Amino acid sequence: MPQLGFLHGRAWAALLGQLRRPPGAVCIGAVRSHSQDFDIAGHFDPMIPDAECVKIMCEILSGLQLGDFLIKMSWKDVRHEMVAKRGLAPEVADRIGDYVQCHGGVSLVEDMLQDPELSRNKQALEGLGDLKLLFDYLTLFGIAEKISFDLSLARGLDYYTGVIYEAVLLQTPAQAGEEPLNVGSVAAGGRYDGLVGMFDPKGHTVPCVGLSIGVERIFSIVEQRMKTFGEKIRTTETQVFVATPQKNFLRERLKLIAELWDAGIKAELMYKNNPKLLTQLHYSEDMGIPLVVIIGEQELKEGFIKLRSVASREEVAIKRENLVAEIQKRLSES
Amino acid sequence: MPQLGFLHGRAWAALLGQLRRPPGAVCIGAVRSHSQDFDIAGHFDPMIPDAECVKIMCEILSGLQLGDFLIKMSWKDVRHEMVAKRGLAPEVADRIGDYVQCHGGVSLVEDMLQDPELSRNKQALEGLGDLKLLFDYLTLFGIAEKISFDLSLARGLDYYTGVIYEAVLLQTPAQAGEEPLNVGSVAAGGRYDGLVGMFDPKGHTVPCVGLSIGVERIFSIVEQRMKTFGEKIRTTETQVFVATPQKNFLRERLKLIAELWDAGIKAELMYKNNPKLLTQLHYSEDMGIPLVVIIGEQELKEGFIKLRSVASREEVAIKRENLVAEIQKRLSES
Repeated sequence: MPQLGFLHGRAWAALLGQLRRPPGAVCIGAVRSHSQDFDIAGHFDPMIPDAECVKIMCEILSGLQLGDFLIKMSWKDVRHEMVAKRGLAPEVADRIGDYVQCHGGVSLVEDMLQDPELSRNKQALEGLGDLKLLFDYLTLFGIAEKISFDLSLARGLDYYTGVIYEAVLLQTPAQAGEEPLNVGSVAAGGRYDGLVGMFDPKGHTVPCVGLSIGVERIFSIVEQRMKTFGEKIRTTETQVFVATPQKNFLRERLKLIAELWDAGIKAELMYKNNPKLLTQLHYSEDMGIPLVVIIGEQELKEGFIKLRSVASREEVAIKRENLVAEIQKRLSES
Repeated sequence: MPQLGFLHGRAWAALLGQLRRPPGAVCIGAVRSHSQDFDIAGHFDPMIPDAECVKIMCEILSGLQLGDFLIKMSWKDVRHEMVAKRGLAPEVADRIGDYVQCHGGVSLVEDMLQDPELSRNKQALEGLGDLKLLFDYLTLFGIAEKISFDLSLARGLDYYTGVIYEAVLLQTPAQAGEEPLNVGSVAAGGRYDGLVGMFDPKGHTVPCVGLSIGVERIFSIVEQRMKTFGEKIRTTETQVFVATPQKNFLRERLKLIAELWDAGIKAELMYKNNPKLLTQLHYSEDMGIPLVVIIGEQELKEGFIKLRSVASREEVAIKRENLVAEIQKRLSES
């Protein structure tokens, strides 16, 4: 079950630089209506932040469990960089393009360096240098097999300077009775070294690299998948639901939930004096809350609490004084 | 050391309903420029969501470690509710006011119920009913001692309906050489049952209760305290910094950090090919990162990594294959 609620809290926080802030870098976390961004700004050694951005893109897409994906790099933009900015002869660039067309993956740079014509050309070697560096780092990050070149991809925005990439979901083979999923681009990024300087009154340049996640696009894919597979998405992080079969047991529930809250456990209850037990259990199932504690008159008298696993519907009696420890144990195991 | 970075991720997420979403309730998380809100909307049994809001206010203020605080309830508004809405005779309300003036805390309701004149008055009993309920729940939540009535406090906003409360920081006795801290209101909340209906075309009412945290006010208090006490605030959640004393060791650092990232450990490194070891260690200290792993040529040859505790500056050699487990153990212990 994809836990979007969870990822919303954690993965987006990572995205916006809460979890890993690079040394000396400024993280520009822009919340737009359709996408969410992560950027690394500052002067650093080549391709290190670029590789981290691609890694983060992979982590987010893997974490969201949207299915298989590829990160496609735009060959047209790389060619433009080589020819217009590094002065590589167009025919040499096109020879590189031939390799791109044949291979398209990370091994491509190594293959090209074996080509006598390219490896003897100083400009070609220089032009390939950054790309080789980036692919080296992506290999060290264990994501090389996710990368391929795309001959048709071209930058949509003029402000990109350097490698531009786009993540596309791969179509999974349709199962019987399954609606085909709408796949396509779900994230994009690249380097934009000139943009910040354009807005600086003194024209100071701030090299930047970043990525955008297509939040609405991803939500609609997840929604479509939910419809097709009848999957559920957790919208809360609640770990424990506090229930009772008893009338007039609100005070006991409140006391118990305060104990859980104070122990850092995410718990909730129904804001009703006398909710029905079935309603409480159904709610816990619907919301994907893993544990329910049930307190009644007998339990109260005997100093026990019932702990129910929502998935297995198994119930065990736990001594009240051991309840918090038992819950913490179960949560850490799952 | 107050960990605002941490709370920003966790406590505000709690605030905005990620951690505990009440059954059937809609959480309205409004991000304004100066404050951050938590609200519970929906039809529920009396005073249960109200008590939870006050509890959340206490949890946030305790978590922020701003010093001692009180939650003051506005007597004027409670009196107005009793007289104008429940038809209590003004002189009976003022007799209740005498109690409020004398006691002001949670025991007040019990004291009033001992007063023959009040306990024989049906309207007074009714008027006190909700207040008694709220105070009962706050006692069960273990926060009764944080509550007091304030005779001077009056609602600033007309849309409140019912109990209104405000959290004030208490002045701590000034130490020698210490600038007095600016204290005062840092959070406020209450019930506003009429507001949503005013914006609904069909006039459907949606009872609401909520609270606002004065984020900018709290930030300026924390800043002032930092200046006075020379305290530091962590602005990242980074758990491990990956360092090297060696030149040309970027690839080894990247490989190592990818291992940590893939294990869910929050790690960072310098985006430089050859950073100085001292720079890397200073950075870790400045940022309050608890652990540093140090990899050099010798460690690489012998299959060990140095693990440094930033606080104690102690370093131990750990077998590379045990590094992730050892880091996770240390992090779970701290």
